[in-house]
Amino acid sequence: MGQVQQAVLPKTFEEYNEQRKASFLRVKDFKEAGGRLVGYLCSYTPLEVIDAAGAAAVGLCGTSNETVSIAETVLPSNLCPLIKSTFGFALADKCPFTYFSDLIVGETTCDGKKKMYELLADMKPVHVLHLPAGRTRELEAEQWRAEVRYFKEELERIFGITITDDDLRAAVRRRNRLRRAQTALFQVQRHVPAPLGGVEVMSTLAAGSFSFDIEEYAQKLEGLVEDAQKRAEAGFAPEGIAPGAKRILLTGCPSGGLINKVGRTIERNGGVIVCLDDCSGERTTCMEIDPDAPDILDAIADRYLDINCSVMTPNNGRMEHTCRQLDAYQVDGVIDVILTACHTFNIESTLMQRAVEDAGVPYMKVEVDYSEADMGQLETRLAAFIEML
Amino acid sequence: MGQVQQAVLPKTFEEYNEQRKASFLRVKDFKEAGGRLVGYLCSYTPLEVIDAAGAAAVGLCGTSNETVSIAETVLPSNLCPLIKSTFGFALADKCPFTYFSDLIVGETTCDGKKKMYELLADMKPVHVLHLPAGRTRELEAEQWRAEVRYFKEELERIFGITITDDDLRAAVRRRNRLRRAQTALFQVQRHVPAPLGGVEVMSTLAAGSFSFDIEEYAQKLEGLVEDAQKRAEAGFAPEGIAPGAKRILLTGCPSGGLINKVGRTIERNGGVIVCLDDCSGERTTCMEIDPDAPDILDAIADRYLDINCSVMTPNNGRMEHTCRQLDAYQVDGVIDVILTACHTFNIESTLMQRAVEDAGVPYMKVEVDYSEADMGQLETRLAAFIEML
Repeated sequence: MGQVQQAVLPKTFEEYNEQRKASFLRVKDFKEAGGRLVGYLCSYTPLEVIDAAGAAAVGLCGTSNETVSIAETVLPSNLCPLIKSTFGFALADKCPFTYFSDLIVGETTCDGKKKMYELLADMKPVHVLHLPAGRTRELEAEQWRAEVRYFKEELERIFGITITDDDLRAAVRRRNRLRRAQTALFQVQRHVPAPLGGVEVMSTLAAGSFSFDIEEYAQKLEGLVEDAQKRAEAGFAPEGIAPGAKRILLTGCPSGGLINKVGRTIERNGGVIVCLDDCSGERTTCMEIDPDAPDILDAIADRYLDINCSVMTPNNGRMEHTCRQLDAYQVDGVIDVILTACHTFNIESTLMQRAVEDAGVPYMKVEVDYSEADMGQLETRLAAFIEML
Repeated sequence: MGQVQQAVLPKTFEEYNEQRKASFLRVKDFKEAGGRLVGYLCSYTPLEVIDAAGAAAVGLCGTSNETVSIAETVLPSNLCPLIKSTFGFALADKCPFTYFSDLIVGETTCDGKKKMYELLADMKPVHVLHLPAGRTRELEAEQWRAEVRYFKEELERIFGITITDDDLRAAVRRRNRLRRAQTALFQVQRHVPAPLGGVEVMSTLAAGSFSFDIEEYAQKLEGLVEDAQKRAEAGFAPEGIAPGAKRILLTGCPSGGLINKVGRTIERNGGVIVCLDDCSGERTTCMEIDPDAPDILDAIADRYLDINCSVMTPNNGRMEHTCRQLDAYQVDGVIDVILTACHTFNIESTLMQRAVEDAGVPYMKVEVDYSEADMGQLETRLAAFIEML
């Protein structure tokens, strides 16, 4: 158990505001009570394996501009803000989850993260999952299964435990329940008018990635869905959103850092985000795992490799899924959000635009970072697009 | 043989200048005489397999700013100029080798190229090699061997031929001879003073990547090396380079598009490039293949996977090799050249800087594209660095 982090607060703790102090103390308490904490960034991380290790899996994707400038003392400035923000939180000891993680799980998804993890490993214990570049070769699935097996063994070694098949099957059942609740939350937005604001949905899901108790969180979501369904059946529209608001599908890069910058801007300019089509959206939550699969670890591995992300080549499944959503959610317009310098989503946007426009739906791409610098221009473009719908 | 390209000139041929027309006609003649042409971009492409298919392997990495703006009508502008230039040449039908290629071989090395090939496949027959993200997993080597086998089978299918082990062994012998000549050309620069200008070496090697005859080209290089060795022994320094010029190692991204912009600028400001440490440098040419290996195709695959490039994680071998070169070439300073938006080399530069400075050698990183826009600033920085050595 040599790598497990001690529950000592960072030297800069006293400089933090009350909210951040409270978060640090909450995670410190969790650690002192013997809690295991594993941070991760990407949808391809097989969370059931972390769950089965008795560890809390927390999402560490940086969503704030606050730590970008300190990250740029090490990383290039021409790099995705999510990567810089995440790295900056580690460098500045400003995120309690990053700080107290017993392990940070990276992956060879995009160039920026792949190489950032090499530098992160100077500061934190890091395990990098080697993800294949595609799914069209026989050995790619095989290699990924071996990779997930290796990950399980690493967790066993680090925590000095044994992960059983029963642990994995139980974790699968819990995650399936959570995914069903998330999917239901997305699908309630198929109603016209949508019963929830997209910003509300995004915020709810973002908060959930810091939850230590999956079942508690799933239960909370189930309650929310029930309320939303009642509202939908009664025909209520969310507060602050016009009844005739244009129905927007948001696709592209992870949008956790864009809830205000893009999400709120859309919804105060005549739009309502009815479909979240990024990697935490229905595209991935709809993928469940059979808890009774003959080889449960392989079943877990296979589920994750099936995720459609622009890091894969080819990745036609993403465009096909998005086009199905256009009908299911009665979408008026698609906004494809590219985080600055994200080459894979940026180049793939050509294929997304083609697919969406071929389906007869208007499309717009916006490239954004986490700063406020381009807010004026962004709002003008988003408002003009929505008005045109 | 359905995919083999016909020898028809592009519609825009008459608009080209005489030099470009001559190149197109030369390649057209080659095709009309039954020549097979396979284009490739990356050092990881197993050239012996292309050779053994009786095809000429030509490097298609774009090195000119001329086609960047047309590429930007499809690709993001915030992308590596090499990728944009290459894609632009295909889009504009301006490169005879791209235009007449029976096949273009891509690879899943960096995000930009990986996704660019998906769009290139709209215009040209493309085969993408799936390269693993590292060399630390057992199945990664296995998967790459299978990938090289699949590539051989694809070439057999496309050209309607059978590639024998004898073909492969003969190809290995030819490439080994060429690599030895290239390595000798690099190593002659270990002399003090260096007998050749770095720009001269870079230009010679760049021209060679369009050669249809490996042995002819190897022979030419061998002659050059012999002359250079005589000059070195007589203590001659190259024309236009001061006898006391500072000895520069050039590392980082492929430098074929930077011969003038970076190479000449270094050499007219008191430096001489004695060591080319990019992916066409001694780092890769020194890697030969045993032509008598029990499984020749596996031996070929293994040789290529051993190449150290920043797309691999981890990639410590690159820094270790560079540090050995510092002594062997009596290097005064290291210039790390990053093509704009190349995330892997850009992030890895932190590790390169650390390694070089730990070895007591001054280091400078420059980020450049293929345009003239930043020439003034670049020259000032390079001159100041060299003066400081």
